[in-house]
Amino acid sequence: MEKILNLLPMTPEQLAAFHEKAKGNEIVLAPRPVGAGRVEPLTQEQYAGATVILGNAPARDVAGIATLKWLHAWSAGTDHYTAPGILRAGCMLTSSTGAYGQGVAEHMLAVLLSLFKHLPEYRDLQRAQRWDDLGPVRSLQGAAVLVAGVGDLGSSFARLCGALGAHTLGVRRDAGTPVDGIDEMFAMETFDSLLPRADVVALFLPHTQETAGLMDERRLLLMREDAVLLNAGRGTAVDLDALVRVLQTGRLWGAGLDVTEQEPLPAGHPLWRQERLVLTPHVAGGNRLPSTQKRVIEIALENLRRYLAGEALQNRVR
Amino acid sequence: MEKILNLLPMTPEQLAAFHEKAKGNEIVLAPRPVGAGRVEPLTQEQYAGATVILGNAPARDVAGIATLKWLHAWSAGTDHYTAPGILRAGCMLTSSTGAYGQGVAEHMLAVLLSLFKHLPEYRDLQRAQRWDDLGPVRSLQGAAVLVAGVGDLGSSFARLCGALGAHTLGVRRDAGTPVDGIDEMFAMETFDSLLPRADVVALFLPHTQETAGLMDERRLLLMREDAVLLNAGRGTAVDLDALVRVLQTGRLWGAGLDVTEQEPLPAGHPLWRQERLVLTPHVAGGNRLPSTQKRVIEIALENLRRYLAGEALQNRVR
Repeated sequence: MEKILNLLPMTPEQLAAFHEKAKGNEIVLAPRPVGAGRVEPLTQEQYAGATVILGNAPARDVAGIATLKWLHAWSAGTDHYTAPGILRAGCMLTSSTGAYGQGVAEHMLAVLLSLFKHLPEYRDLQRAQRWDDLGPVRSLQGAAVLVAGVGDLGSSFARLCGALGAHTLGVRRDAGTPVDGIDEMFAMETFDSLLPRADVVALFLPHTQETAGLMDERRLLLMREDAVLLNAGRGTAVDLDALVRVLQTGRLWGAGLDVTEQEPLPAGHPLWRQERLVLTPHVAGGNRLPSTQKRVIEIALENLRRYLAGEALQNRVR
Repeated sequence: MEKILNLLPMTPEQLAAFHEKAKGNEIVLAPRPVGAGRVEPLTQEQYAGATVILGNAPARDVAGIATLKWLHAWSAGTDHYTAPGILRAGCMLTSSTGAYGQGVAEHMLAVLLSLFKHLPEYRDLQRAQRWDDLGPVRSLQGAAVLVAGVGDLGSSFARLCGALGAHTLGVRRDAGTPVDGIDEMFAMETFDSLLPRADVVALFLPHTQETAGLMDERRLLLMREDAVLLNAGRGTAVDLDALVRVLQTGRLWGAGLDVTEQEPLPAGHPLWRQERLVLTPHVAGGNRLPSTQKRVIEIALENLRRYLAGEALQNRVR
C-alpha cells in the first residue's frame, strides 16, 4: 500500500477522479491547496512514511522522507528537487512540462504585441488623460523571432508568432532535431551571429552555468536598435543593470520580463521606471489559465495511473 | 492634360514611380505631406483647375473645385467626401480600403491580449513599484469572437484571432456571403442573441444611422460578465456613459477603445480613469505600420495608372 500526499489544487470532479484512481491506498490531502508555488504546510506526521507526493511540497520537507519513491511536481522546472540531498537515491521525479506552454506563450505574445504597439506608454498617457499619438509601430508580420530554449515554452511561443506571420529561428545544443513551430534551427554557438538578425529575442532558458548572464551588455548591444528582448525563463539569463543602461540610451525598441534575477524585483531598482519595459511578476506560467490547470491535473492523474499499474512514467526527470 | 494634386506622403522611390506614371501631366505636390489626416494647405491657385487629387485634401477645399474628375483618399473611410455638396456630380471617389486591415487588426489584437493578461493593471503596478499577482487570465484558444463589420478591418482581425485558436462569428446584412477569417456568419438581426455567446465583441463599423448607439446599456448587459468589448470602427457605435457604468460595476472583463464619440476624449471624462479599459487615441489605423504606408501608395499608383489608361478604378466609392 502506498501513502500518497496530494497537494494539487483540484476541482471536485478532479478530486473524485483522483480518489477513484488512488483507491485502496492511504491518502493525505493538503488542507487547502492554493495553486502553484503556494501550499499550506503538512505536519511531520502527515509526511512520515509517504511514498508518493503529488505537487510541490517544500524541498526542505521532502529532504527528510526516507520512504519516498516518487515525487510529481506541478511545475515544469524542478531545479529545487534535483539539488543534492533533497530526494533519496532511487526516488523518481516527474514534472508537469507540457502544461504551461500555451499560457506562457500567450502571456509573452501579449507582452510583445503591446510593446510593438506602444500600449504601455499609451497606458501612461491614459492615466495622465492625454490623447497623444506615439507614431510608428512594429508588426510580427515578416519579423524574425529568435527563440533561445526550444522546449515546451519556447516552441509554443514560436508557434504563436508563426501563426501571426513571423519567421522563427531557434537555438539549441543539438541543432539537428527539428522542433514544432521553429522554421530554422541553429546551434547555440551561433547565437551571437543571429542576434543582429532578430526583430525579437525571446529567452525560455532554465538556470544553468551556461545561461546565467547570457544577455550581458555585449550581447544586448548586438541586438538591433528596433528589436525587443523577452525573458520568460529564468531571471538570471539577463543582466538587469546592463539592460537598464541599454534601455536608457534608447538602444532597443523595448523589453518584456516576466522574471528577474531577484524576485520580487527590489523596490527602487531602476528597472521599475523604464518606459519601454513591460514587467510582470512571474505570472506567465502558473495556474492562471483554466486550460493549464486542467492539463496539470491530467498529467498528474495519468502518471498516478501509470505508477500504480507499474508502467513507465511521463515527464520523467530522474 | 490632367492637373494632378499629389498630397500623398511618399518615399523618394515612390515619388519617382509617381512621376514616371504621371509624366506629361501638370503636377502639384503638397509642400510637405505629413501622413494621414494631416497635410499642409495648398493655395487657391494650386487647387484651381485640378482634375485629380491623390490624398485627403480638406473637404471644404475640395468643395470649390468644378473641374475635379477623381479624388483618391488615402483613408479607408470617405464619409467626409460623400456628404452632399463636396464632390461635383460625376466626380469619382476611391478609397484605400484594404491597406489598413493588417495594422488595425494587429493593434486591436494587442489590446485584446493585453486585457486578457491584465497587462494594463500590471503597468499600473509597475509604476507603483509593486510585484503583485493579479490571478486568473483568459485565452483566445477556444474563445468565441463576435465581429460586427466584416470588411477589410473586421475580416483581418478575425483572421488573426482564428490563427490563435479562436472561433469567429460575424454579423452582416447579407449573411449568405462567406468572409475570409469568419467561421460562422449571421444576419445583423441576430446580433442580440449572439452577444451572450461571445467572449469578445469586436466592432469595426462605419458611422450610420443603424450603428450609432448600437452598444447601448441593454446590449452591454447582454454580454457575458467575463467578455471583452473592442471598438475600432467609429466611436458613435458605443454609448460611453453606459460603458462607464457597466465597467464600474465589474460587469465586463474589460474594454478596448481606439475610437470615442468625441475625439479627443474630453479631459475629465470618467472613461479615462477606468482600470480595465485600454484607450488609444485613434491610432490603430493610419500610416504607423510600414506595410500600411507601402500598401496605401501601391493602391494609389495602380489607380493612377488605371485612370490615365482609361481603365476601371479599384476601391470605387462613387
